[in-house]
Amino acid sequence: MKINKVCILGAGTLGTRIALQAALSGFQVTVYDINAEAFVSSKKVMSKILRMLTLSEDVIATIQFTTDAEEAVADADIISESVTEELPLKRQVWAQFSALAPAKTIFTTNTSYLLPSMLVDVVDRPSLFCAFHFHDVFTAKVVDIMPHAGTSEEVITLLEEFGRALRQVPVIVRKENPGYVFNFMLMAVIGAAGKLRTKEVASMEDIDKSWMVNFHMPMGPFGILDSIGLDTAWHVTHNLEDAGSQAFAALLKTYVDAGKLGEKTGEGFYKYPAPAFKEPDFLT
Amino acid sequence: MKINKVCILGAGTLGTRIALQAALSGFQVTVYDINAEAFVSSKKVMSKILRMLTLSEDVIATIQFTTDAEEAVADADIISESVTEELPLKRQVWAQFSALAPAKTIFTTNTSYLLPSMLVDVVDRPSLFCAFHFHDVFTAKVVDIMPHAGTSEEVITLLEEFGRALRQVPVIVRKENPGYVFNFMLMAVIGAAGKLRTKEVASMEDIDKSWMVNFHMPMGPFGILDSIGLDTAWHVTHNLEDAGSQAFAALLKTYVDAGKLGEKTGEGFYKYPAPAFKEPDFLT
Repeated sequence: MKINKVCILGAGTLGTRIALQAALSGFQVTVYDINAEAFVSSKKVMSKILRMLTLSEDVIATIQFTTDAEEAVADADIISESVTEELPLKRQVWAQFSALAPAKTIFTTNTSYLLPSMLVDVVDRPSLFCAFHFHDVFTAKVVDIMPHAGTSEEVITLLEEFGRALRQVPVIVRKENPGYVFNFMLMAVIGAAGKLRTKEVASMEDIDKSWMVNFHMPMGPFGILDSIGLDTAWHVTHNLEDAGSQAFAALLKTYVDAGKLGEKTGEGFYKYPAPAFKEPDFLT
Repeated sequence: MKINKVCILGAGTLGTRIALQAALSGFQVTVYDINAEAFVSSKKVMSKILRMLTLSEDVIATIQFTTDAEEAVADADIISESVTEELPLKRQVWAQFSALAPAKTIFTTNTSYLLPSMLVDVVDRPSLFCAFHFHDVFTAKVVDIMPHAGTSEEVITLLEEFGRALRQVPVIVRKENPGYVFNFMLMAVIGAAGKLRTKEVASMEDIDKSWMVNFHMPMGPFGILDSIGLDTAWHVTHNLEDAGSQAFAALLKTYVDAGKLGEKTGEGFYKYPAPAFKEPDFLT
């Protein structure tokens, strides 16, 4: 089978980016959301990305936006679902689209931390269901392909090809793993940085400097946390049971309670838009 | 007090690089080793680095090399010790130089994983003793300053200034921590990568791709392991008690037993000098 028509569920940050990349890659794209207002900001983000990439904005007009679920999925070869990261909501959406989608449609979820096996029992076509997880689409071009035990090998191969068609590097996650591959490693880094901080081994700045200088990277773990969002970081860390994670979760909670969620609120571990780690004398 | 004369103990990889950077930074440098043959390879490495940096090799002639311990430490303001990473040997060296060095000499150890408190009881001047740990000196310009409980604040401040004079970014490690700051985080990444591999979640190549693409880095955890040396990695991992580390240590042991120690032996996880991860089509 060949993928031609792509249906995106959820016009948020990732849904918007996947839709745009699919349209740019020559696929026919429909974006579905329950809220029509989401389409306005989605199109604005698309314009911004296209200007940054110095590409024509004409491609946006080729994308269909609809709040009509039946229309959205009509004749779709694949669904990429990026609705809010809540298990009951994702289960409801997959039950709904199981009833509406043509038999041929491949179902993929872009979940960050849930597993396809937590959703598959509401899906009417388990062998066509797989996690297909994007990072940033345009700057971090990795797509994780994580099957559940019943996903067919043909679907995995097809998603690998589709991932490459979307200009991503496909990574096969052979066994279900929370955080896939990269986020699993990133959480380990963040956990270690959190321990260094909560045990007062080193200052946040010195921890970030060590990472930035040794790895020649533009930010360290605390800068990365600010860009992820401290609410998200708290949510993930809080659910880990070891004492180190709990201590760091408690620290993150003080920021979350103070409304300091990172870059998006103007303050987290650093202050934005001009955080200290971007200053020229930071690495001295 | 002002640092002028620097005494380097051990003409190995790091001793050589620290000596060269100190000489380039205008300090008077003496390199001590028990083995005069080490000086031949040390000077070759210095020449190679200077050619890479397109700097004159004349600076090498300003460095004194000696197998005479008393001569090496005469009038030294600071000792930087980079002898083999074995506790009994380091203890013996520090007892020896406690007896030989002038009262003013600051004592620093460049140990990778030992702690200054494991050595301080043989030192005759605990308040002048501190870990002062380099990474690569020329490409990874971080120096960790890790005091034991009795190191004086003046010494910490002086080492911070001396680190900057050596063109490094000083990082203060306020509490003793094996691996300091960066290596502690790096071990967390490597531990996570090891788990993904031993649990067969993803292939080595896919794990490295995830890291390289998301972080825009030239190698991933397994490439990094090959450059560290799988014998060193085994040694560190083997000493960790959790089941995940033990499983990864067992895997590393199969490479070590086969003589595959990484880049230095021509093969580790990858084959050198042209490892797969450097090929243009690796990230596709």
